[in-house]
Amino acid sequence: MNLVNKQYLLASRPTGEPSVDNFRLVETPIPALVDGQVLVRNHYLSLDPYMRGRMNEGRSYAEPQPLNQVMVGGTVGEVVDSRSPQFQVGDQVVGMGGWQQYLLVDANQRGVLQKVDSSQIPLSAYLGAVGMPGVTAWYGLLKVIAPQAGETVVVSAASGAVGSVVGQLARLRGCRVVGIAGGTEKCRAVVEDYGFDACIDYRQHPEPQSLAAALQAACPNGIDGDFENVGGTILDAVMLNCNAFARIAVCGMISGYNGEPIPMRAPQLILVNRMKIEGFIVSEHLPLWPEALKELGTLVASGQLKYRESVAQGIESAPAAFLGLLKGRNFGKQLVRLI
Amino acid sequence: MNLVNKQYLLASRPTGEPSVDNFRLVETPIPALVDGQVLVRNHYLSLDPYMRGRMNEGRSYAEPQPLNQVMVGGTVGEVVDSRSPQFQVGDQVVGMGGWQQYLLVDANQRGVLQKVDSSQIPLSAYLGAVGMPGVTAWYGLLKVIAPQAGETVVVSAASGAVGSVVGQLARLRGCRVVGIAGGTEKCRAVVEDYGFDACIDYRQHPEPQSLAAALQAACPNGIDGDFENVGGTILDAVMLNCNAFARIAVCGMISGYNGEPIPMRAPQLILVNRMKIEGFIVSEHLPLWPEALKELGTLVASGQLKYRESVAQGIESAPAAFLGLLKGRNFGKQLVRLI
Repeated sequence: MNLVNKQYLLASRPTGEPSVDNFRLVETPIPALVDGQVLVRNHYLSLDPYMRGRMNEGRSYAEPQPLNQVMVGGTVGEVVDSRSPQFQVGDQVVGMGGWQQYLLVDANQRGVLQKVDSSQIPLSAYLGAVGMPGVTAWYGLLKVIAPQAGETVVVSAASGAVGSVVGQLARLRGCRVVGIAGGTEKCRAVVEDYGFDACIDYRQHPEPQSLAAALQAACPNGIDGDFENVGGTILDAVMLNCNAFARIAVCGMISGYNGEPIPMRAPQLILVNRMKIEGFIVSEHLPLWPEALKELGTLVASGQLKYRESVAQGIESAPAAFLGLLKGRNFGKQLVRLI
Repeated sequence: MNLVNKQYLLASRPTGEPSVDNFRLVETPIPALVDGQVLVRNHYLSLDPYMRGRMNEGRSYAEPQPLNQVMVGGTVGEVVDSRSPQFQVGDQVVGMGGWQQYLLVDANQRGVLQKVDSSQIPLSAYLGAVGMPGVTAWYGLLKVIAPQAGETVVVSAASGAVGSVVGQLARLRGCRVVGIAGGTEKCRAVVEDYGFDACIDYRQHPEPQSLAAALQAACPNGIDGDFENVGGTILDAVMLNCNAFARIAVCGMISGYNGEPIPMRAPQLILVNRMKIEGFIVSEHLPLWPEALKELGTLVASGQLKYRESVAQGIESAPAAFLGLLKGRNFGKQLVRLI
């Protein structure tokens, strides 16, 4: 084969809001495979909020994305060439293929590629509801919030790849579930498509007091659990409505990703309400992934767990799609279709 | 008997900082006992920061202290009259006797009085290291922070009745322990008397950056656990030095008791460092008290757990002693001697 691989590198680090200029497209010839290597043609690239944190230089939970290297990212695809006995041409695989059309890897690296079966679950779902976002929802809801039937759970970024799964799993466990999302259309889908009991459009509540009042109305018994994807004034409004022994799973604080300070207004509520606030990163809980993926896969295959995708076409569309994701322009799991 | 009981009532609620005018001294005749009642002469009254929260009208973790009723408070004393088969004159007891010289109670109320033994443990210690403050330290350290040997634990209000026990228990479990206290004398005692590895005088660090730098120097391996009694800028400085998976036990936020807003500056660190922040109230964990009191009693009796008391003399001194406690003028457990 004489293939060329289109790749996006991180060209520079953003100061404040990122732009398309932070990325650079390059074309790299793909060398012949050596023993143990596998070549995967990536079908879908997953775009996720965590990538924003990696673009910064500063200390975060993960190493910064190195400059002038291929942007990190989850992918699903198909093996198109193999010099490993573990993989055959035609195998469908999920892995961290990055922002590029092809992934060339040493298949002996443990866990670098996972075979998946698209007969009952669409290939792209392995990047969403049956992938990292789904497991993130599962872990934060079940292992941090650990809700009881009858409790009220609030989910911010409720229409997103993670939030929509959080709410559906909580409903299946008998909770009242209230979403927070941006815009009428998203809120409608959160209730009608994903079955949340209610959804609040934060754009209609620019003042924290107004948002807190809307939450109070939607949560007549108070809030017992919060799956926090946003932080900032949304978290403040949630905390004002928390019951004693409320649990907040901190999954994201997208409101602060560009470096603006986002103080927590009333931390004394942690004491007053004996709250637990816990941050987590799903990649640090790998032993629980099989259990989570089994439940999520079963629910998706049986149609009980619904999801939605925003698909951008072609590798060239990745930077703009990513910037749109950070502004909430996507609707459901943001993917880039690479074939 | 024809006794008169001097009592302090809550006369008014403070707006901002409390003053002696919020309390009123009254003298009340003690009626003859009826069947089942016990009369206790209180020897010591415990003054504690939680009382400040009770003085406010607003929602907190406990009901507000009602106006024109005897101020709530823990006491130790001696039974001086009894019409209950469960208690005899001369029994030493601990209970919630309030800000008054005598406590008249129905001894059939479960748990209203607990007999204690002062042969090996001084009576007053049942209000401190072997009482509610000691159990508070024990619970927050062992059940919320759950430190491992070799980890670094920070304790604010380190010279206080709770903080001094936290540090000593953490040292006994092999931790590096760094205190934060106000003033040279307190810091000296924290290190020399209680055996902390280091103590930082927050008065020498009015700027959060300066306090954070001092913590960094005292915690070369970062902070794994924080027993938080103060909140505000102290908590901010601690969070800046926290390691991944750090645990913060929120026991008090005395910096905000007078109603000033005390935002948390950088809540995104909860996510970045996958921290757990948990508020707790020791009275909600009664099943663990026997285990805690057994360890604390053994350590005090054997001299391994040290404590210090500030004793004000006479019921009339209670309001001023309480206000001094809120300003950190006490040194160790604040008591009022009533006999």
